[in-house]
Order: sequence, then structure tokens, then C-alpha cells
Amino acid sequence: MPGSRWRGFREYLRVEEALRLVLSSSGRLGPEEIPLEEACGRVLFDDLLSPTDFPPFDRSAVDGYAVRASDTFGAGENSPRRLRVVKGRVGPGKAVEVMTGRPLPQGADAVVMVEHTRRRGREIEVLTPVTPGKNVSARGEDVKRGERVLEGGRRLGPQEVGMLACLGMKKVRVFRRPRVSILSTGSELREPGERLGRGEIPDINSYSLACAVRSCGALPLGLGRCPDERGELERRLEEGTRKGDVVLISGGSSVGKEDLAPELVGEKGELVFHGVNLRPGGPTAFGRVGGKPVFCLPGFPAACLISCTFLVRPLLRSMQGLPPDRGLRKVEARLSRKVASSLGRVDVVRVRLVERGGERWAEPLRVTGSGILSSLTASDGFFLVPEDTEVVEEGERVEVELWDFRDRAVQHG
Amino acid sequence: MPGSRWRGFREYLRVEEALRLVLSSSGRLGPEEIPLEEACGRVLFDDLLSPTDFPPFDRSAVDGYAVRASDTFGAGENSPRRLRVVKGRVGPGKAVEVMTGRPLPQGADAVVMVEHTRRRGREIEVLTPVTPGKNVSARGEDVKRGERVLEGGRRLGPQEVGMLACLGMKKVRVFRRPRVSILSTGSELREPGERLGRGEIPDINSYSLACAVRSCGALPLGLGRCPDERGELERRLEEGTRKGDVVLISGGSSVGKEDLAPELVGEKGELVFHGVNLRPGGPTAFGRVGGKPVFCLPGFPAACLISCTFLVRPLLRSMQGLPPDRGLRKVEARLSRKVASSLGRVDVVRVRLVERGGERWAEPLRVTGSGILSSLTASDGFFLVPEDTEVVEEGERVEVELWDFRDRAVQHG
Repeated sequence: MPGSRWRGFREYLRVEEALRLVLSSSGRLGPEEIPLEEACGRVLFDDLLSPTDFPPFDRSAVDGYAVRASDTFGAGENSPRRLRVVKGRVGPGKAVEVMTGRPLPQGADAVVMVEHTRRRGREIEVLTPVTPGKNVSARGEDVKRGERVLEGGRRLGPQEVGMLACLGMKKVRVFRRPRVSILSTGSELREPGERLGRGEIPDINSYSLACAVRSCGALPLGLGRCPDERGELERRLEEGTRKGDVVLISGGSSVGKEDLAPELVGEKGELVFHGVNLRPGGPTAFGRVGGKPVFCLPGFPAACLISCTFLVRPLLRSMQGLPPDRGLRKVEARLSRKVASSLGRVDVVRVRLVERGGERWAEPLRVTGSGILSSLTASDGFFLVPEDTEVVEEGERVEVELWDFRDRAVQHG
Repeated sequence: MPGSRWRGFREYLRVEEALRLVLSSSGRLGPEEIPLEEACGRVLFDDLLSPTDFPPFDRSAVDGYAVRASDTFGAGENSPRRLRVVKGRVGPGKAVEVMTGRPLPQGADAVVMVEHTRRRGREIEVLTPVTPGKNVSARGEDVKRGERVLEGGRRLGPQEVGMLACLGMKKVRVFRRPRVSILSTGSELREPGERLGRGEIPDINSYSLACAVRSCGALPLGLGRCPDERGELERRLEEGTRKGDVVLISGGSSVGKEDLAPELVGEKGELVFHGVNLRPGGPTAFGRVGGKPVFCLPGFPAACLISCTFLVRPLLRSMQGLPPDRGLRKVEARLSRKVASSLGRVDVVRVRLVERGGERWAEPLRVTGSGILSSLTASDGFFLVPEDTEVVEEGERVEVELWDFRDRAVQHG
């Protein structure tokens, strides 16, 4: 019996330090060129300097008549200025009909809104004067040639995609999305929906991790389930590092006899740390194999997702050029009851948000173990009790981070 | 010349009332069944009652030895209790080795953590007593059979997907995603990247609207560009209502001669409103054709996206079972300089967020017109000046809604 494995964690690395090691292990990914149609939600690689002025010509901002502004001076309801409606060029005493967005006719320097005119056959009466430039959107007013319009690292939303279209970019260079190999280990795991024998449970983490990976813009590659067998795990780890930019192995990350993953990472590459002062999520290991970051995450599903949120998510974001943080929305709330914590651990306290007496309160859920997945689905988010804090008192203000996709939490935000 | 079209907007409908009409025009879509692998980000249709207990059996929460708790009473470093390690059933004075997550052996009622034992050949010394139930995760502790685990209308994130796997749901019923037909009108429009003749500009809205539609979980169907010709517009409108659940037509939504869309909607179905007291975004029309909601959005890209954010986005969310709001994250900030507004209009003031003196400030962008797309890309979000307010003073607190996808804004959140 390999007694040396029966050691428990000797020490837990501080989670901030663990994250620093994770982030320093991998840089940003390179660019890829994609069609504009696929750019939504992707992250721009280069700063974008405008190749052109936009609008590319002086244009009318309204429906009306292009005029020489000086022809309208002194106009009023009782002293209309009469102008002759012509096609083409605007000369003195002339006006040309123009639609919103269309080029300003030559010779004109302003547009009178149609509402401020009266049509009289082939003439109009101008009822309100305009100054030069009025109702004209000048060439380059929106964007000037050479101007830095978008910075690299910007996630592309509707307006950014519109801007790219506006500047004629049919293709766009974006950060490549990290491909993430996901493997669940444990001889007791079965496909969800399969009939379960004694001691068997469904594979949860393959599914929840795939969604977690997608939710930060990366691409999950499911490697399926693997029994607690060294040879098989070794083959899958090799496959994972070959196919993915990052590997997530869930289960077998602790220090028991069946916890093969961290040791294997150490043998095949480098084990950077094993054990983090995060609760839940402590039994997490991290290393590099074949130059690729490999995470050994706890098998218990709540611990697995929390570890992923704190250590994997910032890495996947930074690899795509985003800030290396969790990127979750935050709200302030008052704690509805006292929470006790252990010194030395960062406690991830799952809370439900409620409005009461015109204030937002964070109600800690009563959670019995790190296996408790319902502590995540029943919560709106979490706050952290730092390692040097033993008690957070009732009524104290806490900063709650909201789970991704938690739409009902927006109600409180 | 159809002079009647040259009328300007007689009145603008209040945007809240416009939204109420939009939302009352269409109910939620029906369900579809999808594989669990595709559930991430979708919205659950039915309440989910658990078909099973989870965990499905009493299991160990740690690596260690399953025991009868009473056998450990009085144990200590200097008074260890000796137990014989056996396989199978735990009888008096016996212990069975057990791994995290594995079923609790018969006869045991607690687990001693391996760290609290010393191995002596075929015996262990227990150094710390345990109470009954200690380190045991009981059957149904996480989820009980028949319990309502998730409510319909919940967006499925990593933990919800994990929960579905946990309960053996290989397939899941979710709200169908709205299919949204998108059509840009305007004879001056060209494909982005095409060489532009005089007066021509790239089609921006087809791309920005497709991304806006995706960003609220719906599916864009690009119908391309359409010149300002009645016959062609009529054909495309028919195609749009046939293929989509919702139709977005951008351009030609005002009251000029070339603004064909609202009139056509009225002729082919029902025009519900035309003109909203939103700025930018006022020239928006809405109606129903063939039972499908049809929006005529302004052609100017910033106005188009803002109108979409205020009127289309809540509809697309509600059709998928989400709250019928914009669903954007909000932060408080102080206004860095006075903003003037017009009575009767809801002004969408685009702002940049900055930290200064330990406070978050909203700096209004100087915007000259509704064509200004860079006012959206340069801003972090917006706040609203209500219709009954003429001035918001420097230093006042405003609630800023952040653009979707604006990752850098999270830094401030």
C-alpha cells in the first residue's frame, strides 16, 4: 500500500498565488481571421485604425431641403423665404430636396427640415432659418481616417460589429478561442440517464465544465469518462494535451489512493501546485504537460465548478485577450446573518439575494458539504470571506459576485 | 408627390407604452427538446421536479475509514482506539477503507478522515472521535426525489446543466429560440468592403442587428439588403414573416418619401405605433403582419441599435421565457457634468465610466447626431433622462446600464 499517498494536504497554497502561477504559465493565444458574420462575442486582436472617413461624404441628417444657409436668414412663419426647388446643384435662391443620409448636394451648406417648410408648387417657403452646417453630418464626423476606433482586447458586441461593417471590414482578426479538453475520472461514473448500479453516479462534471468553458468564450472538447486506472488516464491526458490548449481533469485530484491525476501530471510534465486555500475547491492541482496547462479539479461538482470559476476562468479569459479576472457582475448587499469561517481559508459563501426594507440582502445558504450542487443552483452568487477573517457579522456590507447566466439576479442588480 | 407623407411625426408615443404594446403583441414561444450538451445558455421550459434522490446512496465525503461512531468515542492522540481493517461490512471493532464519494459500507454510520488515523498493519488507530453521520453525505442530502430543483424560465448555466446531468436528464425541454428575420433597406447600401460609389455606404445594420439578436439568445436570419422599392420590400417582408418569428427592417422607418416600411406594415397587417419618444431611436414603427411582430427601425446605426435595445430586446427575452426587460447590468455613478435634455423625450445619454477620487463617475459623450456609431463604441453604457426632466446636474447620481459584452466595464462594476 502506497502509504505516502495517504498524507492529506500538507499545506494549501493561497488562491491568489495559485492564480498568479496559473496565469504566468500561459500567454495569450494567437489571432485568427474570421468573417464579420461570426465576430459577435469574439475578442478583437489588433487595435483598429480606421482606413476611411465615415460618413464618407457630407450628408443630410434629416429629410428636407438642401440650401445655402444665407438664403434662409431672417425666415419666419410670417416672413418665409421663397426658394426654387431644382435638381442637382444648389445655387443662390435654390433648394434641392434631400433624404436623410443622402449626400449633401453641391453648393449647399445646410439642410432645412421638411417640417420647417411649406411646399408651393415648384417652390418652397422656408419658415425657420438655418446656420451653415445645420442638419449636415459632415464627412468624417463619426470616424476619421487613421483614428483608433477600437482597441485590441475589446470584446465585439453589436456596436463594435456595426463599426467594423461601417469601415468595410468583411473579415476581422480576433483572438483564437482556447480549446479545452475535458475529462471526468472515476470508475463509478456513468452517462447521465444510464441505469445506475450500486455506488454508481452520473457524470456531472463533463457537462457542467463544458458549459463553464463556453460561458467564458472558449471551446469545450469532451474526452468523456475515464476509470481510475493509471494507463487509461495516461492515454487520455496525452490525447487531451494533443487536442486542447488547456486540459481539465475532474476527480482524483485529492491525496487518496485513487487520486492519480496530480501525480501523473508531475511525472509527465511539471506539477506546479496541489492544494489551494479555497473552500470548497481546495483539492485542486495544476501543472503543465507538453507545454499545456493541466488542471486537476475536485470530483465533487460544486467544488469542481468553484475551482473552475476561480482558477480556470481567468486563464481562459486572459488567453483570449480579456482581463484575467472572473468577469462576473458584482452587486453590494448586506449580510442577513452572521457567517463564521476558518482562518487560513478563503470561503466561498453562496448567497441568495433578497430585497427587504428597500435594501438588498445576501442570505447565506446552509450548505453541508462540497458535494452540494444545489447550493449553486439555489444561490444567486457568492461572496468571499478572506483568509484572515473568522467572522462576518450580520448587517455587514459584502460584495456579491453573480453567477454567469443568472438572469433573475439582474432584477436585483 | 405624396405630400401626406411629408408630415413629420405628429406625436411620439411614450417608450414605456410602446414597449407595453410590443410585449402584449406576442406571447412566449413553445418548447423544444434538445440534448443536454446543447443546453448551455438556453432557458428551461418546465419546472424541474427531481425524479430521484441525489446522492442516490449514503456516501463518504472524505477519504478514510468507515466505522461505527461509538467505537471511536474517547479516542485521542494519547488514547487511540484500535480497529481492525476489513472488507465489506463494518461490525463492532471493525473499519472499512473508503474513498471520497463511494458508498458508505453497510454497518457503518460515520467516516474517520485518513488524516485522523495511524495505520498499523491490518489495524488502524483512530486519533479523533467521530459522531454518527460525521463525514457522511446522506442519500438525498443534495436533492430529494420530488423536490422542485429548477423553475421554468431559468437560464441554464454551468450549475444548472450539472444539476440536469446529476438527475439523469439526457434531454431537456427549453424555450425555442426566436428566429429573427433581418432586412436592411436603402438603395444606397452596399456590402461592407465593396467599392463605394458616390452617396453609397456599407450596410451596417444587418451586421449589428444580427449580433444584437444573438446577444439576447435569439437566432438571426439575414435577409440581406433591399432597395427603396415598394414591390421588392413587399416580397422581402413576406419572406421575413414566413421564415421568422419576428421581423426587423432597418431604414425607411421615418416619415419621408422613401420611408415605405411603416405604411407597408399597415397595409399588409396592422401598424400599432409609429414614432416613439426615445432619443435617439424616435423614428421607430411597430406592427404585425401575418401574426408576426414587425419592427421598422431607424436606418442610422446608433439610433437603430438603441431602438433595438429598448423595444426588440425585451420582446426577444420574453419570447424565450426570460424577464421582459433589457437585462443589462447596472451600476451607479455620479454625473461628471450637467446634461440638458428636452421635455417630452427620453434621452439615452451615452457615458464613459471613470474612477476618480475613489468614486465612479459617468462622463457624457458629446454626440452630434443619431448617426454617430462611435458614440456607442466609445461609451461603456448609458443612463436615461426621463421625459419630465430638463436638466441632470453635475454630481447627481445616475444609474448606468452597461452595454452587453462590455468586458472592460466589469472593471468598474
